Formats: sequence, structure tokens, C-alpha cells
Amino acid sequence: MKISARNTIKGKVKNVVVGQVSAEVTIDLGNGKEIVSVITKNSVENLGIKVGKEVYAVIKASSVMIATD
Amino acid sequence: MKISARNTIKGKVKNVVVGQVSAEVTIDLGNGKEIVSVITKNSVENLGIKVGKEVYAVIKASSVMIATD
Amino acid sequence: MKISARNTIKGKVKNVVVGQVSAEVTIDLGNGKEIVSVITKNSVENLGIKVGKEVYAVIKASSVMIATD
Amino acid sequence: MKISARNTIKGKVKNVVVGQVSAEVTIDLGNGKEIVSVITKNSVENLGIKVGKEVYAVIKASSVMIATD
Amino acid sequence: MKISARNTIKGKVKNVVVGQVSAEVTIDLGNGKEIVSVITKNSVENLGIKVGKEVYAVIKASSVMIATD
Amino acid sequence: MKISARNTIKGKVKNVVVGQVSAEVTIDLGNGKEIVSVITKNSVENLGIKVGKEVYAVIKASSVMIATD
Repeated sequence: MKISARNTIKGKVKNVVVGQVSAEVTIDLGNGKEIVSVITKNSVENLGIKVGKEVYAVIKASSVMIATD
Repeated sequence: MKISARNTIKGKVKNVVVGQVSAEVTIDLGNGKEIVSVITKNSVENLGIKVGKEVYAVIKASSVMIATD
Repeated sequence: MKISARNTIKGKVKNVVVGQVSAEVTIDLGNGKEIVSVITKNSVENLGIKVGKEVYAVIKASSVMIATD
Repeated sequence: MKISARNTIKGKVKNVVVGQVSAEVTIDLGNGKEIVSVITKNSVENLGIKVGKEVYAVIKASSVMIATD
Repeated sequence: MKISARNTIKGKVKNVVVGQVSAEVTIDLGNGKEIVSVITKNSVENLGIKVGKEVYAVIKASSVMIATD
Repeated sequence: MKISARNTIKGKVKNVVVGQVSAEVTIDLGNGKEIVSVITKNSVENLGIKVGKEVYAVIKASSVMIATD
């Protein structure tokens, strides 16, 4: 499957906090960097997301803002 | 200024394509990785975004999906 | 590849309008229903999106609002 | 009221899971298809969303991605 | 029609810039404040959006970030 | 720091509801108007968000829809 979302960043799950509906997943990008994602609790279960699993962060380009100093 | 968006990733602008309303900005993260952003043409001008400029990609956690192989 | 986005709806591309940065793609769901998507021009090219192609609309649950009469 | 969001899909509420802040609502589209939405718990209450209620899923075109096999 | 989006802010259209796919609409909130929206060119036409028209900016709560000084 | 998000609206925190992952923050804009935001519980803690604090609602233009009567 190919997806139109322009950003796909590989990493390893570092932490998972599960609420009643949402879950916060921290992904370790391996160079001291992390990405934090909020998805549904059901997706955490459907994808078998747990600490140590290799995953991809997927981000649509129109969701990315730019900041400058 | 601090922002609630959980993801702030430093990089350097690699490419800018400007349309009549939107602009696509490619940010080089320095390790062979890139992030692509779509913002308004006006923001490109307001922030002085051009090739070589140091910028941050800013992404709200709820905009980050997760994929698995 | 499995993705955390909860909504994947099959259809066939009915129309594509390409601008300088963005593109609007209309997907026919086959029962008189359609879904309209705005992605980048580059994604249209990368995925070979053209009229008649079978595709999936993919939508993160947190992007779906609900309305009532 | 007319809204700029290009996608309005009619269905019937099939399931509601309510957390402290967010709620996950599953909408049955009637042909074996479903759409899952995450909105606030307050919106579930304000709109009187409950199983069996006729509702519309509303989605901005820029929130719709496209995938291909 | 009632919608789950928690934010509906009344204003008057101050400026419209139309591209091939997207359009940028500036809404005057009346107290020296403005909101800028990017929607599709087709929505501008479907809703008859033009300078001076009374409109509402509609924003899903999960799209609102918070910043502090 | 300057950000590409086109909308930055000043206000004062009126209410905070914190769940296990997400939090709902109501911001008083001072003229009888409010904006509701859903961010992560962690951001509420990182930014020290509490009732009475001066904050800014920050919204990307592509997240703003338009409705008409």
C-alpha cells in the first residue's frame, strides 16, 4: 500500500499511555529525537503497538507547520 | 513562546514551491531524512522562508498517525 | 502496511484537478456517493492517480466531525 | 447552515465510547461500511448522540488522504 | 444543522484569494481581529463567499493548539 | 519564535478538564466569546496551563472551515 501522506518516519515505540478512548504513543527516532502521536486506543490494539515495536510515524504535509527563531 | 504542539523538529529548508495560495516546503533534517510541509504562500513570505534557512517543523500529536509493516 | 487511521473507504477516481501545489481528487464510492480529497500535486504523481484508478480514501478518526439535523 | 467541508456522509450511530474528554463514535453507513469519529464528550452530550440516531459524518477535504494498493 | 465542532465564530469576509484548487479567505471578526481560512476554490463558489458576506469560522477543538509567552 | 500558523488569538484560560491522555481547555476571549481546544494532558503540564493564565489559541489556516446561514 502506498499513501499520499508525504511524511513517513521510521522509529521504535518508546512509550504508550492508554486512556479510555485515546492513546499517546512516543516513538524513538534513534538519534535522540522523538515523535509523539495521539491515536485511538483501538488502533493501539489493532496494530499491536507496544514498547520496542518498529513503527512508522505518518504525517500529511498539510498538518506540518513551520516555525523560525 | 512555548506551544502545546508536541513535535518540533529542527532542519534546513531544501526546496520551496509556491502556488497562488499554498506553498510546499521541503525541510532537510540532516541525516538523509526530509519533512514536507504545506503552508500558505503568505506564511512563506511572512517568515522569510527560503532555501538554506534554519527552521522547525511543528506537528500537533493528534496529526501523527502510526503505520506498521 | 497497516495504518492507525480508522477509516479506509474504497472507490474509483472520478476527477482530478491539479494546481501548482495542491490537487483536488474526487473519488466515486459507487453508490452515488463521493469523497473529495485535497493532497499535494506531487502525491498525485507519485501514486499515479488518474481517472478510473482504484484507490482508498484514508481518514484519521479525529478528523471526522458529526452533524445532526 | 451550509459548510465548506466537502464531505457529508449520512449514517446511523452504531456505537459510542465515552472517555473523560474524548468520545469515539462509530457510524453505520448502511452498506456494511462504517466511519469512526473522535469528538469531545461534550459534543456527544450537546448533540444528543446515542445509538440509533441519524447523523452525518463531516470531513474537510484536506483531511482526506489517498492510498493505492 | 448542529455540528460537533466546538468553535463557531461569526465574522464578515474581508478578503478572498482564489488559486486553482485552494482559496484563502480572511474573515474580519469586527474588533480588529481576523481569522484566516484555507478551503477549496469549489467551496468558495458553492457557498457564494465574497467580500462583505456574513460567515462563520468553524474549527474542531482538536485543531486548536495553545501557546504561552 | 514565529510560526506559520496564521491564527493566534489571545485569551485567558477559563476551564481545564484533564483526562488520562487528552485535556479540554476553554479559553475566554474576553468579549463573551470562547475557544475550546483539545491538547494532550502532558502539554497542559508542560505549559503550566491553569485557570486564569494568559494564553494564545493557535490555529493553522487549513483547519478553519467556513459556514453560512
